[in-house]
Amino acid sequence: MITRNLTLSLDAMGGDNAPGMVVDGIGLALARMPHVNFLLYGDEKQLIPLLDKVPAVRSICQVRHTEDVVSNDEKAGAALRSGRNSSMRLAINAVHEGEAAGIVSAGNTGALMAMAKFVLKTLPGIDRPAIAKNFPTMQGDCIILDLGANVQCDADNLVQFAVMGEAYARKVLGIEQPSIGILNIGSEDVKGHEQLQQAAAMLQEINLPIRFHGFVEGDDITKGTVDVVVTDGFTGNIALKTAEGTARMFSNFLKEAMMNSLLSRTGALLAKKSLSKFKGRIDPRRYNGAMFLGLNGICIKSHGGADAFGFANALDVAVDLITDDLNDVIKEDLSHLDEMHPESLIKP
Amino acid sequence: MITRNLTLSLDAMGGDNAPGMVVDGIGLALARMPHVNFLLYGDEKQLIPLLDKVPAVRSICQVRHTEDVVSNDEKAGAALRSGRNSSMRLAINAVHEGEAAGIVSAGNTGALMAMAKFVLKTLPGIDRPAIAKNFPTMQGDCIILDLGANVQCDADNLVQFAVMGEAYARKVLGIEQPSIGILNIGSEDVKGHEQLQQAAAMLQEINLPIRFHGFVEGDDITKGTVDVVVTDGFTGNIALKTAEGTARMFSNFLKEAMMNSLLSRTGALLAKKSLSKFKGRIDPRRYNGAMFLGLNGICIKSHGGADAFGFANALDVAVDLITDDLNDVIKEDLSHLDEMHPESLIKP
Repeated sequence: MITRNLTLSLDAMGGDNAPGMVVDGIGLALARMPHVNFLLYGDEKQLIPLLDKVPAVRSICQVRHTEDVVSNDEKAGAALRSGRNSSMRLAINAVHEGEAAGIVSAGNTGALMAMAKFVLKTLPGIDRPAIAKNFPTMQGDCIILDLGANVQCDADNLVQFAVMGEAYARKVLGIEQPSIGILNIGSEDVKGHEQLQQAAAMLQEINLPIRFHGFVEGDDITKGTVDVVVTDGFTGNIALKTAEGTARMFSNFLKEAMMNSLLSRTGALLAKKSLSKFKGRIDPRRYNGAMFLGLNGICIKSHGGADAFGFANALDVAVDLITDDLNDVIKEDLSHLDEMHPESLIKP
Repeated sequence: MITRNLTLSLDAMGGDNAPGMVVDGIGLALARMPHVNFLLYGDEKQLIPLLDKVPAVRSICQVRHTEDVVSNDEKAGAALRSGRNSSMRLAINAVHEGEAAGIVSAGNTGALMAMAKFVLKTLPGIDRPAIAKNFPTMQGDCIILDLGANVQCDADNLVQFAVMGEAYARKVLGIEQPSIGILNIGSEDVKGHEQLQQAAAMLQEINLPIRFHGFVEGDDITKGTVDVVVTDGFTGNIALKTAEGTARMFSNFLKEAMMNSLLSRTGALLAKKSLSKFKGRIDPRRYNGAMFLGLNGICIKSHGGADAFGFANALDVAVDLITDDLNDVIKEDLSHLDEMHPESLIKP
């Protein structure tokens, strides 16, 4: 693959630890992305002194000054109306205007989605963008979508999510023929919502090289039963946060246990290297960077509480999607879908 | 509390490891429930030889012979029609007929719910029973319901679940004034399904000493933000299974890490006692025993794959609900609810 030079625009003021972690995150990522330049949208009075301390970062960043910031508690609609000069909005505009190939923000999720949708619009054939994320499984990573952009989804939406997730798993995760599952519950008589049945029927008929596994249950996510888990944004959000919470509780209990006695503390010391490898494997920061798929431009949401390490990972996600031309792949897949007869699965 | 003698009826043939684990489960539980007798419904040709090996169990069990068994893949409707002489159905009948104070089965969940509903009926004021389970949190146990009995729930259903969960947390978990949350997603603009909003409004107005916390997110479950997590059966089932899967993955990764090197294996050996305490704390078998709340009788579903240790825990759950007169508490709470004006929250 030929490495193209590319530019990312960053909402340098979004996130609890911004703008410090944005500058430090670039510093951490820069060795693995020497071909990337950055447009930093934010308060130059804060940004310039930070950049001046790290010349290697300074040299690949251009600061675009604005004092407006979208706050975390601002409603999406209000942010859309009044945040026209915010660091978030200007960073998105840079993608729309072709100055940047993608945008990363650790700011307000609802505002970011609303602004990105408004400015970038959705890809042809996509009714609604979805929030997607990599997730660790016992067989490697999978991708789950939607994680909260759409509370209610109809069968068409779910099929579109499946197409986008499949494209991601194939191009970015490098899985030759990714398998796809729809998240559902197992009990025979309560077979889940009607739209899940409809979406499953559509995916069985689809004229794309999609390997549709069928329905999967909550525990199939970490089993790695499928590469792509499709769900509505309500269910996906609950599943993701429940998993994160369970992992955190597990970590806390383990830590308590290992600190419990002199013997266990000694054991923990001996196993330190293995335990830290284990910690790394489930480190949520490694999975930072939620993708807004289905937009006419690459937009990545970093966790609001991310540190520099996590933010650097979100930058990786943006670079991956751009380098692998994910949106072109999705567009091509959707155009094939559109040719389907007797009726199109995708609304005009 | 005065210990009353009581009888449990068991579907001795339900579950992957039945009837062996049923007999062994009684053996494990019997020291902590010396006042309990058992009616064992199932194949006497299998049961009698098993019981003959354990005289202490034999002496408190009465075998009621039947050769019919509800299979795991049988649809609930079919089981209801054709399973009239099944071990599951006869065990439920024993509760209805007053021979037993509660029934435990590790068989087919859908069939058990359908039969229990048909035979026992719901409590006055309850439209639909819910499946509920204890769940570990960083602050002690909470209870979640519904875990899969009802895919779609309206606001009335959710309020009824809240009342039942609150009664359980107060009487059985012993929490003086349990707090209640409705599972939802956090994003400001997508405030979750309409019925969640309605149920929240109703719980704010309720004339019971209910401490309604408001909405909680997926990661609040293990944080222990509330004592009772109320949700529809679809979402609850996905959350529970996702949590179980995450815990399993975490355990596997940890095991791999600790077996990774001589040093880590030595460390694990030193920390053995603490690690096994840790394992015990998150042992899913400790949480075995899903409660079918809202029925006119105590009905407990053990996991189908449960071993004797897990099944013994399901017996504990049954004994707890009976001893604490949970159904009487629920009935009383619901009768207060019914007095509410200007309009009743509970359908007649």
